[in-house]
Amino acid sequence: MEKCILLVCDGLGDLQQGGKTPLMAANTPNLDRLAVQGSCGLMYPLGPGIVPGSDTSHLSLFGYDPRKYYCGRGVFEALGAGIALKKGDVAFRCNFATVDAQMNILDRRAGRIGTDDAASLGRMLDGMKLKGAEATFKSTVEHRGALVLHGSGLSPDISPTDPHGEGKVQQSKGIDAAGKKTADALNAFTKKSFDILDGALVNKERKSNGLQPANIVLSRGAGTLCPAPSFYEKYNLNAACVAGGSLYKGVAAFAGMKVLDVKGASGTANTDLDAKVAAVEGALLENDFVFMHVKATDNFGHDGDFDGKKAMIEKIDAAVGRLMALGATVVVTGDHSTPCKLKAHSAHPVPVGAWGKYVRSDSVLKFDEISCAGGQIGNIHGLELMPSILCWMNAAPMHGT
Amino acid sequence: MEKCILLVCDGLGDLQQGGKTPLMAANTPNLDRLAVQGSCGLMYPLGPGIVPGSDTSHLSLFGYDPRKYYCGRGVFEALGAGIALKKGDVAFRCNFATVDAQMNILDRRAGRIGTDDAASLGRMLDGMKLKGAEATFKSTVEHRGALVLHGSGLSPDISPTDPHGEGKVQQSKGIDAAGKKTADALNAFTKKSFDILDGALVNKERKSNGLQPANIVLSRGAGTLCPAPSFYEKYNLNAACVAGGSLYKGVAAFAGMKVLDVKGASGTANTDLDAKVAAVEGALLENDFVFMHVKATDNFGHDGDFDGKKAMIEKIDAAVGRLMALGATVVVTGDHSTPCKLKAHSAHPVPVGAWGKYVRSDSVLKFDEISCAGGQIGNIHGLELMPSILCWMNAAPMHGT
Repeated sequence: MEKCILLVCDGLGDLQQGGKTPLMAANTPNLDRLAVQGSCGLMYPLGPGIVPGSDTSHLSLFGYDPRKYYCGRGVFEALGAGIALKKGDVAFRCNFATVDAQMNILDRRAGRIGTDDAASLGRMLDGMKLKGAEATFKSTVEHRGALVLHGSGLSPDISPTDPHGEGKVQQSKGIDAAGKKTADALNAFTKKSFDILDGALVNKERKSNGLQPANIVLSRGAGTLCPAPSFYEKYNLNAACVAGGSLYKGVAAFAGMKVLDVKGASGTANTDLDAKVAAVEGALLENDFVFMHVKATDNFGHDGDFDGKKAMIEKIDAAVGRLMALGATVVVTGDHSTPCKLKAHSAHPVPVGAWGKYVRSDSVLKFDEISCAGGQIGNIHGLELMPSILCWMNAAPMHGT
Repeated sequence: MEKCILLVCDGLGDLQQGGKTPLMAANTPNLDRLAVQGSCGLMYPLGPGIVPGSDTSHLSLFGYDPRKYYCGRGVFEALGAGIALKKGDVAFRCNFATVDAQMNILDRRAGRIGTDDAASLGRMLDGMKLKGAEATFKSTVEHRGALVLHGSGLSPDISPTDPHGEGKVQQSKGIDAAGKKTADALNAFTKKSFDILDGALVNKERKSNGLQPANIVLSRGAGTLCPAPSFYEKYNLNAACVAGGSLYKGVAAFAGMKVLDVKGASGTANTDLDAKVAAVEGALLENDFVFMHVKATDNFGHDGDFDGKKAMIEKIDAAVGRLMALGATVVVTGDHSTPCKLKAHSAHPVPVGAWGKYVRSDSVLKFDEISCAGGQIGNIHGLELMPSILCWMNAAPMHGT
């Protein structure tokens, strides 16, 4: 068996502008070497015509059918923030925001508060006792965070406090008794977050510096952990995750991967790819499978920044060269397309390339959305990626004699 | 409708060594003509990332989902040995082996006993009366054979007597009453096989010639026939099988194909391909569909013999030329890859090519694992082969108006 590195470049796929996608326009000698020496194809992460979210797509790429295992964004955010979830806990994706005294949302990202300020404020909310529930709160990157309500008889079937747009902070509502109990606890948490944060020293300083105070926490994406086999139980592989963004860490944690803390892995364009490659190298010593995630390709797609995405791909290409020197099978793909001209995720298939000792060398010469068509991998569904990877690792199970 | 010949070359797919697979390295003018004039593609017999057994793969290629119809190796071995199986019978794959008086296995293939000696010994075991069951035993090729226990209240849920490796003959065990009854019968058969064979004339002669005696029968792969529609019921096609190996004959018999006895079809590298082609020609007079199997490509893969596999492919190519002269649609594929450098089955897809009056000519110019990617057939699952063949025969059913 060969060990394997799976590199997922978020939102990698794109549409042509002036005849080329960012991947076609970029100078990518290492990705092209991977294509020349390995197998290529195209992948529909969730199937043709379904626009993948990053969470559902990563579940699918890891072999977890999101129709069965997608249990709400909050679950993956909480796991990614390092909160241990127990059965019955209800988890939320949260934003620090700025509100006035009438609960009108003035800035739903609290002036894009920095990670350190947010962490100071977040610690003030952690461990809050509520009627019928206790709250665990962790801030993650910038204005983002995760909330978990622990208690008996809670339910994720409640409405969010975050309007996910302009307007007022919403009162969460539930329908049945468990929902009402949970909504009451969430509303109490939200009110207390304002009471505590509005007068906090960090926010006084922010105001005096002309910055928006992060004086409330908005919640959405309620979810509760669903039982799932671990990556090891599914594939008999020890797996680790090297990622910056908490959502990706969360999906990896959901699958039971060991989530590494990598200094400099920021989930943004300034992420330290050298540090990530070094972390992958270290992780390969104790693991059979290492998942590495790079977020910024998606960010540039959302911003419609073709040149930025192209430049980021060239940085990633250099990292791919270093990954190919680590003695493992290397698989590169995206979790979905984020075409610059759409500034949003799309259902267009993403290129996938595999390179290693047990990978056939096919006739594809370049790693891009167009060249990969007609390669050895063909057109696969996201759920077929892990089985294909097992084949490339020479670790696939046998059925029959 | 055109008639169709399906040629399955066992373990045909491979990985590149020095840039080429055996199929790429071989001189194959007829297979290449098939590719130039016909349609090509790649096939995952059981789906990406699942290493096929020969039994499960052939079920899939004939359109029988092995998740539903794989009822144990013994069933196919027994059917292939020509034993008529009834509902409730329990069938086993058997080996003649050499043991000492303490039941230590000295040679699990009895010195690779020849087919004729094994047949003499096998006849001594056939029809044995046991407590609660009667045994039908047939030897097949060399040390191989099949055992069927007939009786009421038997179960295949028992452990094997064959350790499938070194060690001692195992006592079969069952959990419930039916399993215990069956295990008792199998243990009695095994003990009697030693009592009868150890003193048999054939074995006395073998010992005096310095050969290992075939003095016991080891059993594994217990199975019982599961109900299945016949090939004719599924496709409205009369079908025949031309094969040497009993497992392949068995899967064909399971599907209700007429299994032909072809002199010289040995299931080994010295198989008489001319005799097989002649048998196919004869079978086409009375059948719509003829399945022809060649085993030796797989054997060379298991032996890691690249040049042997390449030479066997060149022999097969000559046979393909003769098959293409018989006036039928010709489909060529493998049941799985057996890469020489792995010496084992693998999950890598196999090439598939189709040639005939109702087959499109695509842009693929060579029949090999790399060239077939991007052909007209695309990447198909084994269960999609028969529907595709119906299309190429112009015999596909219509759905709708």
